[in-house]
Amino acid sequence: MSSELNPTSGFEQLRRIESSKLFQGAVIAIIIMSALTIGAKTYDVAPWLEQSLSVLDTGITLFFLLEILFRFGVCNDKKRFLFDGWNLFDTLVVIGSLIPLDNSEAVLLGRLLRVFRVLRLVSVVPELRFLINSLLKAIPRMGYIALLMFIIFYIYAAMGSMFFAKVNEDLWGDVAIALLTLFRVATFEDWTDVMYETMEFYPLSWVYYLTFIFLTAFVFLNMMIGAILEVMSEEQNAEQAQKAHDERDDIARQLQAVQEQLKELTKQVSGKSGER
Amino acid sequence: MSSELNPTSGFEQLRRIESSKLFQGAVIAIIIMSALTIGAKTYDVAPWLEQSLSVLDTGITLFFLLEILFRFGVCNDKKRFLFDGWNLFDTLVVIGSLIPLDNSEAVLLGRLLRVFRVLRLVSVVPELRFLINSLLKAIPRMGYIALLMFIIFYIYAAMGSMFFAKVNEDLWGDVAIALLTLFRVATFEDWTDVMYETMEFYPLSWVYYLTFIFLTAFVFLNMMIGAILEVMSEEQNAEQAQKAHDERDDIARQLQAVQEQLKELTKQVSGKSGER
Amino acid sequence: MSSELNPTSGFEQLRRIESSKLFQGAVIAIIIMSALTIGAKTYDVAPWLEQSLSVLDTGITLFFLLEILFRFGVCNDKKRFLFDGWNLFDTLVVIGSLIPLDNSEAVLLGRLLRVFRVLRLVSVVPELRFLINSLLKAIPRMGYIALLMFIIFYIYAAMGSMFFAKVNEDLWGDVAIALLTLFRVATFEDWTDVMYETMEFYPLSWVYYLTFIFLTAFVFLNMMIGAILEVMSEEQNAEQAQKAHDERDDIARQLQAVQEQLKELTKQVSGKSGER
Amino acid sequence: MSSELNPTSGFEQLRRIESSKLFQGAVIAIIIMSALTIGAKTYDVAPWLEQSLSVLDTGITLFFLLEILFRFGVCNDKKRFLFDGWNLFDTLVVIGSLIPLDNSEAVLLGRLLRVFRVLRLVSVVPELRFLINSLLKAIPRMGYIALLMFIIFYIYAAMGSMFFAKVNEDLWGDVAIALLTLFRVATFEDWTDVMYETMEFYPLSWVYYLTFIFLTAFVFLNMMIGAILEVMSEEQNAEQAQKAHDERDDIARQLQAVQEQLKELTKQVSGKSGER
Repeated sequence: MSSELNPTSGFEQLRRIESSKLFQGAVIAIIIMSALTIGAKTYDVAPWLEQSLSVLDTGITLFFLLEILFRFGVCNDKKRFLFDGWNLFDTLVVIGSLIPLDNSEAVLLGRLLRVFRVLRLVSVVPELRFLINSLLKAIPRMGYIALLMFIIFYIYAAMGSMFFAKVNEDLWGDVAIALLTLFRVATFEDWTDVMYETMEFYPLSWVYYLTFIFLTAFVFLNMMIGAILEVMSEEQNAEQAQKAHDERDDIARQLQAVQEQLKELTKQVSGKSGER
Repeated sequence: MSSELNPTSGFEQLRRIESSKLFQGAVIAIIIMSALTIGAKTYDVAPWLEQSLSVLDTGITLFFLLEILFRFGVCNDKKRFLFDGWNLFDTLVVIGSLIPLDNSEAVLLGRLLRVFRVLRLVSVVPELRFLINSLLKAIPRMGYIALLMFIIFYIYAAMGSMFFAKVNEDLWGDVAIALLTLFRVATFEDWTDVMYETMEFYPLSWVYYLTFIFLTAFVFLNMMIGAILEVMSEEQNAEQAQKAHDERDDIARQLQAVQEQLKELTKQVSGKSGER
Repeated sequence: MSSELNPTSGFEQLRRIESSKLFQGAVIAIIIMSALTIGAKTYDVAPWLEQSLSVLDTGITLFFLLEILFRFGVCNDKKRFLFDGWNLFDTLVVIGSLIPLDNSEAVLLGRLLRVFRVLRLVSVVPELRFLINSLLKAIPRMGYIALLMFIIFYIYAAMGSMFFAKVNEDLWGDVAIALLTLFRVATFEDWTDVMYETMEFYPLSWVYYLTFIFLTAFVFLNMMIGAILEVMSEEQNAEQAQKAHDERDDIARQLQAVQEQLKELTKQVSGKSGER
Repeated sequence: MSSELNPTSGFEQLRRIESSKLFQGAVIAIIIMSALTIGAKTYDVAPWLEQSLSVLDTGITLFFLLEILFRFGVCNDKKRFLFDGWNLFDTLVVIGSLIPLDNSEAVLLGRLLRVFRVLRLVSVVPELRFLINSLLKAIPRMGYIALLMFIIFYIYAAMGSMFFAKVNEDLWGDVAIALLTLFRVATFEDWTDVMYETMEFYPLSWVYYLTFIFLTAFVFLNMMIGAILEVMSEEQNAEQAQKAHDERDDIARQLQAVQEQLKELTKQVSGKSGER
């Protein structure tokens, strides 16, 4: 029996280590160090520092590999571990880091994958995880608005590349370039330069730009208002329903007391009637 | 009787086809293909591809024509069909597509009208239709604010073209050009270039620009706040009124039970009094 | 008695004219015509048109003069008429229009005052009047935030003109110019050009710009949120208080009925006790 | 006993002076004068004016020193005085002002410290103090969102300096410069110039900019919505809970009256039963 208990308690101990503040703090510290390493590499550094960074990088990769294996080993439900989005993400980032940096061709890819290690901060800090989850929940809400926005952009881009392609090939050459130019107009980035250029050929082309700006701004504004309202009513409804329920319960309880008092009284009255 | 039933059931079958997911999916697919065709034409394509695009375009036009005729035929209330805004829009787009693309003069118009086919996506996807309807509902709400905004713009444009026309004819030549320049200032697009230019002649003209920016930003901000509040109170009121009503009903029902119990008791008491 | 009645009924008739839709429509039409006249003058027009515009202008001035005199005559409470902000504004605009346009020096002033006639649209259309009143109400709410914003701007402007005056005299020459430059930075208008220039002398000056942008954006954002909340809670409180009051009244009325039933019952019970 | 009372009443009198409108008005006036002095020094002024400004500056420094000593002397709880953030801030500003302006090296530092005197306006005007306190309260709420934002910026900056450093050393040289460039892109400041430059080398680099803009805008938007909702629900909850409580209390009181009436009635009924 004691032999059976031992591995379990060892297992328990490992799990306690995994969920301990110290372990999590160490992981966060290593991630931040990893981020600093990535940042440091963008500077021209002395050869000895570059070498130490390289050694440090290998160390971090190993640590992350061990950590994910440890967390996998400690996990009870292995299947569930792999299907959890955050664990999958962590695993992919760690596997990506295993690509050696020696080959000059893969060096950029390897470095790129190392950048994503910083994102592990999100998967480790629970508050950031919660934040990302709530942001992801906000995406479908904006889906159809985004589609509508894209339709507006596409129609204007098609019109723009039809009429303005001969004015400026670089801005309106085809539908894809025109889409990029329109995004620029939507961010108000030197949009008058774009407009003044086409106005020389088509003096009325300001109508095109102004209607586009008004449409996108109007749809965007309504999207924002809609998003505020939706989230708000969701949250408020839940809270208010609870509060209203609590309140009503208080009153209902008092009313029940009244009804019981009445029942008692009725019994007494009819009892007297019976006793007579 | 069977001869009477047959056309009806055939009619029903057709209507079932019209409202089927498959049919709607096909229409959406064709619209997207139409959009891609329009986009592809903005690129320099090989002659054989251009020809196939042309054939495809004729095919899409025919499909849309047949689809609208089919939907018209299937519809019970022909009059209502024509007066529905979305159907009217679809019909106009289809008729517009029938303009032949051969004539070099009408070619641009024909292509322009084909662009609007993409908008048919809005009339086919119910969610987008709902979105557009709710956006249209938001327009009158902003009507008077827009009028006020225009009055501010007009007054500043009149002042601007009065004083600054001699500084820069291209930006302040007349009231219409000045309106465009002010819209540029309102979007913060290189507005300091405009200001620094006039400040050389009128050193105090920064007052003009700053008051304009503050006024428009202030009115815009209040408009946005107003819009948020209006939509919000509308929605919330409806929901809360319902909830409050439900709650009150629960309490009221309990109170009625109390009143009935009391009535019963009163009857008993007075009954005893009577029986004696 | 009839002689006494006549002037009154004539007076009443005049007042009915004043508040009639037709009269108000005419005033609005004249104001719009006045606005168009002002706009037309910013174009180079043929001499005959300029003369007709001049005649039209005199006509409009006369109409406005007669209208204000008419409205003053029709008004019962002459004192109140003058103390009403809108009437005062109308009167000033009309008096301003009486300045003759002949003198070449006063010509610009005269034209400027004519521009403000367009604002009379606000005083005539009740919806715009209501809008302006509600905007004016929003000003004090933003007072202290504006003061705080100005303090931030002033401190940064003082620092900017202290350090950067030698870098670019045109942008940081003194505290007033620095304030204008900072306003430009706050609108993101080519702010990096300003920053890159000073970063050549003070490589750390990006701290100055970034803290400034964060501070103003943060205060602005909070101001906006605050404004939304204040207006919202005001409106909602009024509405909800009313609704909650109505609801509570219903329940209270039912409870009163219960209490009366109880009183009745008690009377009956004690009555029986007494009659015995 | 009278000797003991005297100092207290003198103390009381001093305290009354401190909290008097007049004293506070004087302090505000001196702060504004101090601000104007700082502003005036940024202009090229005549020597005599510069000297008077210098004298005025010494006067203001002395006044502030006396004021803080006076407030410290008047305060009952000396320990609490020093631990209050605002008093500490005031003290530091005053001590900073005591640095003499003669030494040419410290002159800029001394002038810089004098600028912060304007901030004393915030510590003196209670409304501004309240505003700042509520702004400070808003900071933690935005903490994790800011961290997430920084992670996004850092990853994009690391990628940017990896790929684009060879395109433009000035914009993407290292991770710090890339962060600044990305902040510029996030404010839409000539971001297309940055993009067009890198698109010559990496034609697909628009993906980098567009995803960055969408991500930051999306996170920012959600942050704003979150902030609005949080503050709103907080405030509303407090208010509504109070209101709902008041309402419920009214009903509960009425119900209690009903219950007491019932108790009375029950007593009467059972009393009769007993008396018999």
